Order: sequence, then C-alpha cells, then structure tokens
Amino acid sequence: MAPDFPVPTAQTVAESLHELRAQQPLVQCLTNIVVAQWTANVLLAVGAAPAMVDNPHEAGAFAAIAGGVLINLGTPYDDTTAGMTGAVASASACGTPWVLDPVAAGAAAWRTEVGLALLESATPRIIRGNASEILALAGGAGGKGVDSVDSPQAALQVARTLALRHGTTVAVSGPVDHLTDGHRVVTVANGHPLMTRVTGVGCALGALMAAFAAVLEDGLLAATAATAVLTVAADHAALTAQRPGSFAVALLDELDALSPELLAADVRLGRP
Amino acid sequence: MAPDFPVPTAQTVAESLHELRAQQPLVQCLTNIVVAQWTANVLLAVGAAPAMVDNPHEAGAFAAIAGGVLINLGTPYDDTTAGMTGAVASASACGTPWVLDPVAAGAAAWRTEVGLALLESATPRIIRGNASEILALAGGAGGKGVDSVDSPQAALQVARTLALRHGTTVAVSGPVDHLTDGHRVVTVANGHPLMTRVTGVGCALGALMAAFAAVLEDGLLAATAATAVLTVAADHAALTAQRPGSFAVALLDELDALSPELLAADVRLGRP
Amino acid sequence: MAPDFPVPTAQTVAESLHELRAQQPLVQCLTNIVVAQWTANVLLAVGAAPAMVDNPHEAGAFAAIAGGVLINLGTPYDDTTAGMTGAVASASACGTPWVLDPVAAGAAAWRTEVGLALLESATPRIIRGNASEILALAGGAGGKGVDSVDSPQAALQVARTLALRHGTTVAVSGPVDHLTDGHRVVTVANGHPLMTRVTGVGCALGALMAAFAAVLEDGLLAATAATAVLTVAADHAALTAQRPGSFAVALLDELDALSPELLAADVRLGRP
Repeated sequence: MAPDFPVPTAQTVAESLHELRAQQPLVQCLTNIVVAQWTANVLLAVGAAPAMVDNPHEAGAFAAIAGGVLINLGTPYDDTTAGMTGAVASASACGTPWVLDPVAAGAAAWRTEVGLALLESATPRIIRGNASEILALAGGAGGKGVDSVDSPQAALQVARTLALRHGTTVAVSGPVDHLTDGHRVVTVANGHPLMTRVTGVGCALGALMAAFAAVLEDGLLAATAATAVLTVAADHAALTAQRPGSFAVALLDELDALSPELLAADVRLGRP
Repeated sequence: MAPDFPVPTAQTVAESLHELRAQQPLVQCLTNIVVAQWTANVLLAVGAAPAMVDNPHEAGAFAAIAGGVLINLGTPYDDTTAGMTGAVASASACGTPWVLDPVAAGAAAWRTEVGLALLESATPRIIRGNASEILALAGGAGGKGVDSVDSPQAALQVARTLALRHGTTVAVSGPVDHLTDGHRVVTVANGHPLMTRVTGVGCALGALMAAFAAVLEDGLLAATAATAVLTVAADHAALTAQRPGSFAVALLDELDALSPELLAADVRLGRP
Repeated sequence: MAPDFPVPTAQTVAESLHELRAQQPLVQCLTNIVVAQWTANVLLAVGAAPAMVDNPHEAGAFAAIAGGVLINLGTPYDDTTAGMTGAVASASACGTPWVLDPVAAGAAAWRTEVGLALLESATPRIIRGNASEILALAGGAGGKGVDSVDSPQAALQVARTLALRHGTTVAVSGPVDHLTDGHRVVTVANGHPLMTRVTGVGCALGALMAAFAAVLEDGLLAATAATAVLTVAADHAALTAQRPGSFAVALLDELDALSPELLAADVRLGRP
C-alpha cells in the first residue's frame, strides 16, 4: 500500500507536527534503563504523552489502548522481553502501530534473536537503527556496540530489501538519515555531531517515530517527520550549546519551541 | 490521632524544611526506572540522603534503618514488587513511615492490584497520586496512563473517605494540590504547568513526602511541606526557565536555593 | 608487578587522557538503574564509547570484545547479578580489565556478599568506593547507604592491605581521594562538595576508571587519571555553576572541554 502515499515533503512533515500536538498521542515505551527518562522527556517536549509500561503483566493490555508502541532492545531482560512479546502481539491484534529499535543488533547475539523473533511474529510500522543494526537485522554482520561502523548509504539497498520483505518502513540513522519503505526513499540532511555525544538520542528518535505513527497512517511520513523534528531541533540547539551537557538540555528546549513553520523552513529533505 | 495535629501553616511548613535539612534523613526509594536518577537528585537538592535499595534480598532489612520509604509503582516488575512487599512489611514492623505512589493505577490492572494489596497489608503514612490514581485506588475508574483525567477537586471527597478508611493522609496532585487526612483539608496553590512537561515531577513529590515523613510525625504536615517545597521551587524555576529542559535543571537549583524564609513567604496554603 | 610502574604524575595523567581520546575504548557497564544514563553521558563526554550490556545472555560474550568492564552494585537484581558473574568470568578469561564499585557495601548485606564473591572469583584491575565501602569489602563495618561515614585517610591502611591481598588497585573517594596498589600511594586533592549533591558522580568515576584501564596497563595510573579528570572537571564546573542542577550539566561540558594540558596544569597530585 505504500505507493499510495505521496513522498514526504517539508509541508507534510510540518503538518504532521501540528497533528501530533493536536492529538497528544499516548506512546507506550518498552525501552532500556539507560534512556527511559530522556525518552519520556523528549516525548513530553514534543507534545506526546509517554507511558513506560513494560512488564509482562500489563504490556499487552496497555498496547491495546496506546496510540503507538516503541520496542527498544537497549537493555533487554527475560522479564521485559516477555513484556515486549506481549505488547507486540497485542499491538498487532489491535492495529496499534509499533516501532522496532534493535539497539546493538549484531554486536550482541541474544537481542538480535529477540529482535528477529519479534519481526517474524508481526509487522512493525517502522524499523529504526543505525546502519550496523539494520544490516544485522537483515542478516549481515554487526557493529561495535551502539555505534555504527557502516554508513547509511551503504545500508540503503539492504534497507529497501528489508522494507519490502516485511512491508514496513526502515529508517537508517547517520550524518544523513536514509528512510525507505522499499518504494520511496527520503533523506534528511539535518542534525549535528553533538547528537552522538549524548546517550539516547537515537533511542529518542525511535520513540518519536512511535508518536508520529500514532497520528499518521503513512509509516514513511511518520519516520520522516520524527527524524526532521529531532534533527532540526538539534540544529537549533547547537546554535546555543556547543558541549554535550548543555546540548542535551537545549535539545529538549528546542523540541518544545519548534513550530511547524520553522520545521518546514529548516528541514532539508532529499533523495539519495 | 490526626485531629491532635494543628492545620499546617506557612510557618510550620518552613520549620519542616529547616528540620529536614538538619536531620538529612535517609530515604529508601523503591521507584521506577524512568525517574530513579531524577528522584535521587531532587532528594539531594533538598538536603535528604537517597538510597535506591529495591531488590527483595535487601529491601526489607534496609527499611528498618531508613528514615522513610517510598513505594512508587511506575515500572513494577515481579522482582522489584517482591522488594516492595518486603520493604512495606519491615517498615510497618519497625515504625518506618512509608509513602505509596500508585503511578497509573486504574490505567494498568496489575499494578493497581499490587497497590491495593500493599495498602491492605499495612498503613502508609501518605498516599500520593493524581486524581485518577486516587480514584482508582479508592475503587473508581482509571485514567490515561500517568496523566490525570480527573480534577483534584472532584477527587477530594473520595480522598477524604480513603484517608479515614486507612487512617492515612491522601495527597491529590493537580493545578491546585488537595491534601487531607480525612479530618483536615489543605490546598497548595503554587506550581507551574511546566511541571507536567518534565517526567517524574510527581514521582519526586512522593519521594519528598517520604523525606518529610522521616522527620515529622504528622503525615498531613509532611505531605504539605513536600508539596510546598516542590511547587514553590517550581514557581521560582519558571521565572528563569520557560522550557522543559532548562526548567528541570532550574528546578533542582531552586530546590537547593530555597530557604525556609522564602518558602514561608511564597507558599499559598488554603482550604477548598 | 605493580612496583614496575612509576608513580603517576601530572604528565602521565595528561598523556592518559590523550590516549583515551585516541583509542575511544568500548566500556561495558553493568551498573544501576539510577545512574545508567549519567554514566553513559560521562563516558561520552570524556571520549569513550559506553555500552550497557548487563543481561546474563550477553554480558559474558560482550566482555570478551569490550575494552573495559564496570561492575557497579548500586541496584543489583538476581538477573543482572548473573550478568555480572558472567561478565567477570569472561573478562578474567580474556584479559579484559574490570572495575568493581561495591556501592553501599556494608550497608546492605546481599550485595556485600555479591561483591565479595566476585572479588574472590577473579582479580579486578581496580576496586573503587568511598571509605565505608572499602572497609566493608575488606571485612569491616558498613556505612549509611551510599554516603561514607569514614574518611579516606582512615581507610588507607585497609586499602593497602586489600590491594596487596588481591593484587589490585584500591581507590578510596573522599574530599581528598586516596589511591594505592599496596606499594605506591597517590592522593588527588581536586574536587568540589557539589559532587556529593548530584547522584552518581562516584559511580561515573568507576566507569571512567574502566575506560582508562582499557587503554593503560597500570591500574594505579588508570584510577588516578580517572580521578584527576573527573575532579578537575568538577573544579572547572564549580566556577560557573554553584547549584546541583546546573553543576551536573556543567560537569559534562567541562569533561568534554578538558584538554590534557589543562589537566596537567590543574591536577593536584600528592602523597598522604
């Protein structure tokens, strides 16, 4: 169905941000212990409503009432992995869009299997990762922990194949982000190196994708809007904050301050 | 015994802050993965000593030496829930005051049962939540995740009944906070909308209540002092920080800077 | 072999920072839910690459590819403790240096046993704690939660004995840090009281020691360099930030800004 949607533009990205703030979607995050607070604060800054319900007793039922679900494999445990399985099954049954962020896939074996099992069990609206993680999920080699050793460009063809195989959107983060549903390809050229000096910026991007997926049918537009919002806000934050501590604070402020108009003006969309 | 205590005033609230800083109580927090760091930093900023001992091997024994205990149901797991059960039993046996914060009660079923079971097993010094959570704990319908869909005013009668039933103090957070031990009712009209744009401000309020309960016998005064300290500091922070990232940083700074004299001057106590 | 290394100097400490930034070591952190984000951000700010792989399925295998491993007992659970056991066994087998931070040893019984069992199973490159924790690990009485009730000076003789017994370096934090491998003793007199008003500064120090141990053979130099970097950056941060919220932000910025030259100029190394 993806070809039925138009290619995302600065205008539709800006409208998406307007829509997210109007709807304030409830975003269920099953994420890691490192970035849980940061992720919640990023969602709140943008205008979404985070809820970190990740235990197996509740995750499934909550996915039925959430607007979107994030599955992030940063620090998986047996207990929370069972919660992820339940949340994905429920989201799939209820039509709740969910996002898969296979953190460190390829670098750590068990979570790679967990991610692949989730991916085989149901179709995420979006898969988000750096190039190494996407390559690992598609069957390739892994990277060095959470840092990517491959370029988004190099991963693009694999990402297209992965997207087509699963009928999903694949977002490959990097200096220039590459996003594709297999048919359409979009690049986002915003962002700043300081984003790699603060933990959890990529994880927060996955959460933003779940928030946008909650209010948009087109997965590629949701992934593009999330990427645009985060990277444009990062550009703005880097204007006033040149070091990682103050940059993280400024990024939250700029996510809050970002208007759809500024977003449309500053986002740099393109094609590879 | 509650009627034996006078109604909290600006003066007794200010004296409570002085007392907390003099005693630097050890506050054991069994809380969630989202706000653990923030909660510890809020306690440190005010002058208390946080200790996040939440595993079932140690939680009970530690509750015997802690000055106060926080039970926060934000991300409960089987393992940490067993820790909570042990901590509550030990606190109850040793006379250590404990605070129950039933995060998302009503919106998630299992934790609601966990909270009710803890509440039936022993008497907390204070129950703290938003209106939806308090209504859920009292047997009513639930809310939308961690955001309240009910007003504190609407929950007040239920809160009074809950307080009398359990012989405790119930604190209902909102634009105006309503606190009651069933006999006395206090409102605190300080605070700023930015408090809802940073995750864990309510959770930190529960931790502050445990800190004040460690140094005060009157649960209503402890809850009122904690609410006053956090909301007056938030008022001060909002004077210099208008966006959520910098507001969170400023809130910690203002908690550190808040003197009993400024607290007495700026707190707006009242009755409903 | 420790006597074969020279006593750390301002010059070798500065060279160590240069080396860390050149190698950007992968530091596996098995740490607590309170400080995981902060620890990752401190490592990123200094120039290392954090990876929080702490589940028992992956921790062992990851320790074989990590440059250094941190074991921090702040919030141990059965699950993550199994991960620690696996990581230590693997690190020991592979020659990956690991650091033991026995948070609240003595104040909580189970983790003290966990720490002692890890210590008996293999030799850490560095043991880091406050005086109470080091005394507890060496067989003495415990402290009050995470705050030390003993002075580093008082713990020094015990630290020397502990270091010699295990063939390791022991770093005792406090207003003046005392570090020893049993043969050599170094003091670092930098640092600021605000470091005790932000949660996780000591925990981050342990992580920095694992980062430096990844690029240096001499454990005492690694511990000294980590202590110097953190405390000199804290001195710099305290020049512009006088309260805990802004101090924490400034500390990350100053870790990023710290040059080997400034470090050499400002570090105050000495002997007890």
